[in-house]
Amino acid sequence: MNKIEINQNAKDASLSAENAATERLRSKLWGRPGFLVRRLHQIHYALFFEECDIEGVTPVQHGILTVLLNRPWVDQSAISLELGLDRTTTADVVRRLEEKMLVQRQVNPNDKRSRQVYITPYGIEVMSQLRPKMQRAQERLVEPLSPEEQEEFMRLLIRIVEANNDYGRTVLKKM
Amino acid sequence: MNKIEINQNAKDASLSAENAATERLRSKLWGRPGFLVRRLHQIHYALFFEECDIEGVTPVQHGILTVLLNRPWVDQSAISLELGLDRTTTADVVRRLEEKMLVQRQVNPNDKRSRQVYITPYGIEVMSQLRPKMQRAQERLVEPLSPEEQEEFMRLLIRIVEANNDYGRTVLKKM
Repeated sequence: MNKIEINQNAKDASLSAENAATERLRSKLWGRPGFLVRRLHQIHYALFFEECDIEGVTPVQHGILTVLLNRPWVDQSAISLELGLDRTTTADVVRRLEEKMLVQRQVNPNDKRSRQVYITPYGIEVMSQLRPKMQRAQERLVEPLSPEEQEEFMRLLIRIVEANNDYGRTVLKKM
Repeated sequence: MNKIEINQNAKDASLSAENAATERLRSKLWGRPGFLVRRLHQIHYALFFEECDIEGVTPVQHGILTVLLNRPWVDQSAISLELGLDRTTTADVVRRLEEKMLVQRQVNPNDKRSRQVYITPYGIEVMSQLRPKMQRAQERLVEPLSPEEQEEFMRLLIRIVEANNDYGRTVLKKM
């Protein structure tokens, strides 16, 4: 065995030790639902941005616009509750939507401390253009599963989120 | 029917219209896997913070420490790849871990542009104290499901994340 071969063998051994370490680590991390949920969340963001390329609308901004399509002049606090966002995040995101002319805000005439939000005609137009794109992002997210598995996955997801619906409403700011 | 009764009926009607609107909206948002995944991610963060109350370690910090337990003196770029984080986020989080004395950093002697990271004895101690707490957070996350459903949920989660593993690595900064 010449020197080059020995070096190659040493390299192979070191590489396969590296692969084994990665494999052990992967099985450890991939056995944790929390880790997988974070990855899935990132994947959804990536797919959403790839599909929904209008006005730089983010998934959270899209969530707020969805609320406003259904409930015109809703209070900012009701948006927070519906989407599981803390007050500061909701205020920030609504301000960004206002800068893009997608929503308008006013002080609630019945409660000076609260703000009401309304989706503009332009906001409605953008949402209608985004609709098939958003739908496509949702489909791509669960595409690796068969239709039956997709249904089962959604059923289990809803069960977990429903059972914990009071949790996690105000923790995004800590991230 | 007296005035009080009429008022009560009007109130009931308005409340049930409100409930119906909320119901419509809920069914819309709750039919989207992306929305549910974001909520689940938030719930995991809330449960993690409730259980893992040592040194203010976050789930992402915990992920990095897990990588370091398995791979001492690993490059920061390998951490990014393993956890699906962008370079800036990894650098920020590693710096915070260094401030808490949980890790140490040095310039890679074989590649001056890269940084190697090592978990300190104190870091190993903290990770060992966190272990049962982190485990508890993971268990609580999927607790609403039966053991069989938990297994099925993990199986489906892994399938989706694996199929999209190249997605979403570098999008956290956009959030």
